[in-house]
Amino acid sequence: MSGPVTLTLLNGQETDCLPLSDRGLAYGDGLFETIRVVGGSAPLWSRHLQRLERGCRTLRLTLPAEQLAIDVERLARRLGEGLIKLILTRGSGKRGYAIPANAETTRILFGSNAAVYPAEHAEQGVRLFACETRLGHQPLLAGLKHLNRLEQVLARSEWQSSDYAEGLVCDLTGQPIECTMSNLFMRIAGAWVTPDLSQCGVQGVMRDLLIERVQQEGGFVQVRTVGYDELLSADEVMCCNSLFGVWPVIQLGDRHWPVGPFTRQMQSLAKQVYL
Amino acid sequence: MSGPVTLTLLNGQETDCLPLSDRGLAYGDGLFETIRVVGGSAPLWSRHLQRLERGCRTLRLTLPAEQLAIDVERLARRLGEGLIKLILTRGSGKRGYAIPANAETTRILFGSNAAVYPAEHAEQGVRLFACETRLGHQPLLAGLKHLNRLEQVLARSEWQSSDYAEGLVCDLTGQPIECTMSNLFMRIAGAWVTPDLSQCGVQGVMRDLLIERVQQEGGFVQVRTVGYDELLSADEVMCCNSLFGVWPVIQLGDRHWPVGPFTRQMQSLAKQVYL
Repeated sequence: MSGPVTLTLLNGQETDCLPLSDRGLAYGDGLFETIRVVGGSAPLWSRHLQRLERGCRTLRLTLPAEQLAIDVERLARRLGEGLIKLILTRGSGKRGYAIPANAETTRILFGSNAAVYPAEHAEQGVRLFACETRLGHQPLLAGLKHLNRLEQVLARSEWQSSDYAEGLVCDLTGQPIECTMSNLFMRIAGAWVTPDLSQCGVQGVMRDLLIERVQQEGGFVQVRTVGYDELLSADEVMCCNSLFGVWPVIQLGDRHWPVGPFTRQMQSLAKQVYL
Repeated sequence: MSGPVTLTLLNGQETDCLPLSDRGLAYGDGLFETIRVVGGSAPLWSRHLQRLERGCRTLRLTLPAEQLAIDVERLARRLGEGLIKLILTRGSGKRGYAIPANAETTRILFGSNAAVYPAEHAEQGVRLFACETRLGHQPLLAGLKHLNRLEQVLARSEWQSSDYAEGLVCDLTGQPIECTMSNLFMRIAGAWVTPDLSQCGVQGVMRDLLIERVQQEGGFVQVRTVGYDELLSADEVMCCNSLFGVWPVIQLGDRHWPVGPFTRQMQSLAKQVYL
């Protein structure tokens, strides 16, 4: 369980080689998940699996749920602590968009127990870079964590400075949607608000979990369209994903925020998941 | 030059194996081209290269133009007749959207001299399936032949019957944009019209070539937004790409078209390319 471990599994076999005919390469024809591993297991696996199920329905992709669970369990045990990146693709095919009649889903898992993010981000908060790359509208694919991620690559390529741990991404109409690798929450007029993702964006596992936990505590998270000015007027801002939990946002452009008490509550809720 | 040849080159080496860390797989972080080979060479290579240049500028991807030209020339000579599918990716990287400082573009070429499409499609015309999958709007990526192609995969998955050789795809507002693997031209009020691709769609090499050739012959192709009803009211309809040239469209839903004289002219223009 100690020492650095990196391991790659392709359909259950240790290898570093993907057949060049794989449709994941050709068309981004697949889905992925990034899963935190704690104490030799993946506490949020069932939620990642639910998102894969939604994605597989939309993409008409066969989900090898049992084999995936075995892969994840095996890798998580090997890692102890760390993360698993899981990719599903539609497998190999001939040239052409048509889905092969005999398509067999390819399972790819990368495991690593290296430390991921500095602890200061959660403690002291992060600055957001204001990305100019806009998210296009595509309700068919919105919310899914599919392999067509050029928008995120381009948004993330806009800054190199380590002053910014994350970047804010808006949609074509200029409304804040999410960050490049995490979801956005704002404290507005005494309530939590998170952007509607029906046109674009990734519906994060931690986002859904926090929405549920807030409700269980008697609160409520509004899921709705948010304007840029509204974001700037928020009392507290935070971003979240299932790897790092919650990061307070302390700066966007000229606007500065203190790390507020409601954000600290959200951090506690997120941390409970991994206890 | 005779007999079936299929060949795959990765950075100039014959192999069937891609490193699993390639960002083409992870994010569809790359571009592709499908290039017709005639008489041992690729007559439209310079046009494919131009589109790659445009794509590389947008994606901030290094274009290994000289090595690509060598790869294509070598493969075309081996094939004699057929096609080359070329993929460029940003190469291997660690987890995360950020572009690695030392990113090296990966060149992948698949060659095949197998026959591609039945000659009857060009002679007798094709029926279009009316796809329900809509193209989202993303001006940043519109026109490029990038590896994020889930929309095309989903559109093409809507029909299996060989009655339809192609499918019409509209944008979110219901306006015709293109077919799943080709561009669309319509003869309306005595002139050729092809849809504007500034919001979505792939700017085909054969589309651009036909626009130029029509102009050289003293004609004009209007590039503009086209309504669905306008498409149905067209006198002639055709689709084109650089592999099959021009296919007359003879049916979409209840609407039937004869194969008209202007479409035959366009077929002649397309064929001249490969003489």
